[in-house]
Amino acid sequence: MPARTSLSGFPEWLPAERIVEQSILDQLRETFELHGFASLETRAVETLEELQRKGETSKEVYILERLQDRGQDHDKKERPLGLHFDLTVPFARYVLENAGNLTFPFRRYQIQKVWRGERPQDGRFREFTQADIDIVGNGTLAFHHEVEIPLVIIEALSKLPIPPVTVLVNNRKVVQGFCEGIGVEDVEQALRSIDKLDKIGPEGVAAEMREFGFAQEQVDRLLELASLSGDDEKVLDDVRALGVSNELIDEGLEELGALLKAAAKRAPHRVRADLKIARGLDYYTGTVYETMLEGHEDLGSICSGGRYDSLASDGKRSFPGVGISIGVSRLVSRILAEDLAVASRSVPTCVLVAVMNEDTRELSDDVAFELRTRGIPTEVAPSSAKFGKQIRHADRRGIPYVWFIGEDGAHEVKDIRSGDQVPADPKTWEPPAEDLFPTVKPGE
Amino acid sequence: MPARTSLSGFPEWLPAERIVEQSILDQLRETFELHGFASLETRAVETLEELQRKGETSKEVYILERLQDRGQDHDKKERPLGLHFDLTVPFARYVLENAGNLTFPFRRYQIQKVWRGERPQDGRFREFTQADIDIVGNGTLAFHHEVEIPLVIIEALSKLPIPPVTVLVNNRKVVQGFCEGIGVEDVEQALRSIDKLDKIGPEGVAAEMREFGFAQEQVDRLLELASLSGDDEKVLDDVRALGVSNELIDEGLEELGALLKAAAKRAPHRVRADLKIARGLDYYTGTVYETMLEGHEDLGSICSGGRYDSLASDGKRSFPGVGISIGVSRLVSRILAEDLAVASRSVPTCVLVAVMNEDTRELSDDVAFELRTRGIPTEVAPSSAKFGKQIRHADRRGIPYVWFIGEDGAHEVKDIRSGDQVPADPKTWEPPAEDLFPTVKPGE
Repeated sequence: MPARTSLSGFPEWLPAERIVEQSILDQLRETFELHGFASLETRAVETLEELQRKGETSKEVYILERLQDRGQDHDKKERPLGLHFDLTVPFARYVLENAGNLTFPFRRYQIQKVWRGERPQDGRFREFTQADIDIVGNGTLAFHHEVEIPLVIIEALSKLPIPPVTVLVNNRKVVQGFCEGIGVEDVEQALRSIDKLDKIGPEGVAAEMREFGFAQEQVDRLLELASLSGDDEKVLDDVRALGVSNELIDEGLEELGALLKAAAKRAPHRVRADLKIARGLDYYTGTVYETMLEGHEDLGSICSGGRYDSLASDGKRSFPGVGISIGVSRLVSRILAEDLAVASRSVPTCVLVAVMNEDTRELSDDVAFELRTRGIPTEVAPSSAKFGKQIRHADRRGIPYVWFIGEDGAHEVKDIRSGDQVPADPKTWEPPAEDLFPTVKPGE
Repeated sequence: MPARTSLSGFPEWLPAERIVEQSILDQLRETFELHGFASLETRAVETLEELQRKGETSKEVYILERLQDRGQDHDKKERPLGLHFDLTVPFARYVLENAGNLTFPFRRYQIQKVWRGERPQDGRFREFTQADIDIVGNGTLAFHHEVEIPLVIIEALSKLPIPPVTVLVNNRKVVQGFCEGIGVEDVEQALRSIDKLDKIGPEGVAAEMREFGFAQEQVDRLLELASLSGDDEKVLDDVRALGVSNELIDEGLEELGALLKAAAKRAPHRVRADLKIARGLDYYTGTVYETMLEGHEDLGSICSGGRYDSLASDGKRSFPGVGISIGVSRLVSRILAEDLAVASRSVPTCVLVAVMNEDTRELSDDVAFELRTRGIPTEVAPSSAKFGKQIRHADRRGIPYVWFIGEDGAHEVKDIRSGDQVPADPKTWEPPAEDLFPTVKPGE
C-alpha cells in the first residue's frame, strides 16, 4: 500500500490528501443521510469477550492494558478490553443495549476507524476507516431492504471520484437449497471452498472439497453453479437449468430476481448476480454483496456485506438485519496513489489578506473579519514581508486570492492564477462559487 | 458524568444525542476552516517512547498488544505501541516527520478521539473527543498568533448552543520575570503551586511553597500577583504596582496588553487576564489560556492551551507554536445532561413516503427517488401497514412529513405536526428550509 506512514500499517495523509479523504467522507455521509440513515458512533473499545464471540477474527485483535497495570497479575486487572476490528460487533452490542430507546427498523450509518493486529509483513492496514450502513429490525425485517442496501451504496460510490463499481450479489438461500438438493451436508465448508475460487481456481476448490469428503458429482455441480453470473433474468434460468429444485432455491431465486429487476431500473448494469459470491462468514442468511471497482479488481471487494437473520440476540429477542461496509482507507489510499482525484488546494483558505506593515496589521484583520462574516475562508498573512513573498505564501498553498490594502486605503484583490487585480470592497466582494472551498476533481 | 455507557468511562450517545454532537463538531470545523486551519488526522497509535517523552502523563497511557503475542516474552514482541492521550504529541511527531512537505506557519485543526487509562472510580472519561487548533512555525512564530488563537476559539464556541465563555489568559513571561525579580529560582514549582490555587486555596498554596523552600516574602508576593485579574489595561498597572520590574515582565505585560486590546474590539468582555492561570505543563513559554463556561464553572476549563517555543525539535530544527484544545466530549456530555440543546428529530429523514400495499411499493420508491434527487432526505415506509401506523412510524422519529399516493394516483403530503395535508408533486415540492435537515436548538 502506498500510504505515507512511519509506522507500518498506520497510514497518514498530508493536508491536501486529507482534503480528498474528507470530501469522500462528507459525500458518503450526505448520501447516507439522504436515505434516512442516522449517524452513530460507538466507543473504540469492546470487552474481549464481546470481540471473541465470533471466534474467527479473534487473532487480529489489539488488546489494551493500562501502562500502570503492566506486569501485574492478570487477576488483579480489570476485565480485558480490545479495540474493535469492525463496526458490526459494536453495533450489535449497541443495539442490544439500547433497543428500548431505538425505533425499528433502525437505519444507521457509522464511519469510524477500526484496528486489526495484522502481521506487518502482509502490508495490510492495521488502522483504517470503515463506512457501514445497516438496517436492523426487531424480530423481523422485510426482504425489500436487501434490495435497498446495494442501491444506496451504488449511489454513494457513484458520487465519488472513482471509476464505476459493480455490486456482485448472490443469495445464501440458493446456495443452501442447492447444497441440500445435491446432498451436501456441510454447507459452511461448501461456502468456504467456493469463496476461494478466485484465489485457487476451480481445481484448487475441487481438491479442497474432495478433501472434505464431497463426492465428485457434488463438486462438479457446485462448480457449475459457481460459474454462473449475469445481470438479468437469464442467470436465474441458468440456475434452474442445472436441474436442482426445491422451495429454498425458488425463494432465493425469486429474491435475486427482484433485486436484479430493481437494479436494472435504478442502476443499470451495476448489479450482477454472481453465484460464486459466498462470503466466508457463516452468519449471512440471504442476499450477500461484494463490490468491484472497474480497473482496480486487484483491490478485491471494496464494499461487502449481506443479510443476517440474527445480528444480535439476547436469548429473548433477535435482531435481523442487512448491511454493507465500505473499506474507506483502502479506497482513499488507491485514489491518492494513482491520482484518481486531487484537491484544488491544500488549505481551506480562499483569501490571504496581505499585511503592509505590522503597524497596520489591524486593517488586514478587519478585512479578514468582514470576509469571514460572509462565510469566506480567510487568513491574514503571517508576516509583513514584501508583497512578492506574501503572494508566494498563498501560491504555495494554492490560495487563489490575495487581498491588498494600499497606502491610500484602497482595497484590491488579486487572482494570483490569472494575475487579474481589481478594486474590491470587503463588505461585498464574493469569490466565484467554485473557488470558495477547496474542490476535489478527477486527476489527470 | 451523565453519559450513557455500559463500560465505565466510555460514553456513547443515542441517535438524537449524536445529532447534537455532530452539529457541534460540524460547527467547530466550519469556524476552523473559515480561519484557514487545515484538517489533519493522525493515527490513534504512537510508540510508547513517543508517548513517554513528556514523562508526566505516562501513567495514563493504554498500551496495545496483539492478542496472539500475549504471554510471549517482551523481547519477542514489536516495539510497544500505545493509544495517544492527547493530540499534541502526535501532531508534534507528524510535523517533524512531514516538515519537508508542509508550509509554515502551518495551521491545522484536528478533531479526534483520545484515550486515557484513568482510574474508573474517578468518573472520568477514558475515551473522549478533543478538538485542537495549532499554528506552528519553522524556527520562529510571530506573537500575533497568540492573539489570534483565543479569538478563533471564542468565535467557535459562541456559535455553539452553550452559555458564553470567558477565556482566562496569562503570560509565562510575566510569571517568569516576576519570579526572577523576587529571587525565586524554582519557577516550575511556583507554577505548579499556583496552579492549585482554586483547589487548595491561598493557604494551601502558601504551605506547599514554604515546604519547597520558598521564603515567606516570596510566597506573599506570588500570591499577590496571582490574585490580580481584569479585562483591560488596569490589570497591567496592578502588576506594575507590585513594584517588581525587569525586561521579561515588561515584555509579558506588553503582550498581555496587546491581547486584551484586540479582544476588547472583537470579543468584548470575553477575554480576561488572570495572573493565577499557570497551566501545569512546563513547555509553555508565552501566553497561556483556560476557558470557563458561564454557569458551568464546575466543569473546570473546557478549552486550554498556550504558546510553546518548541512543540517539536529534532536537534537541528525547532518548531514553536501556539494552540488550544477543546474537550468536546465533556462539553457535549454537559449539553445533553442539562438539555442545553436538543435535536429536532432523531433521524436525518425529512419525508416518509407511505406505502399503500407491497405491490405498489415501487411507486413509493419512485417518489423517494425524485425527492432525494433534489436533496430532500427521504425514507420509504418499511411496511404497508395501515396509514395510521405509518404516520406513527414517522412521528416516533420526529419525521415531519408523510407522503401519500392515493388509489387514484394523486399525491399528497401531510405535515404530521399540524395535520395539514396538501396535493404535491414529487418533482417540485420543497419542505420549508428549516425542516430539510434536523436542527439543534437550545433546550427549555
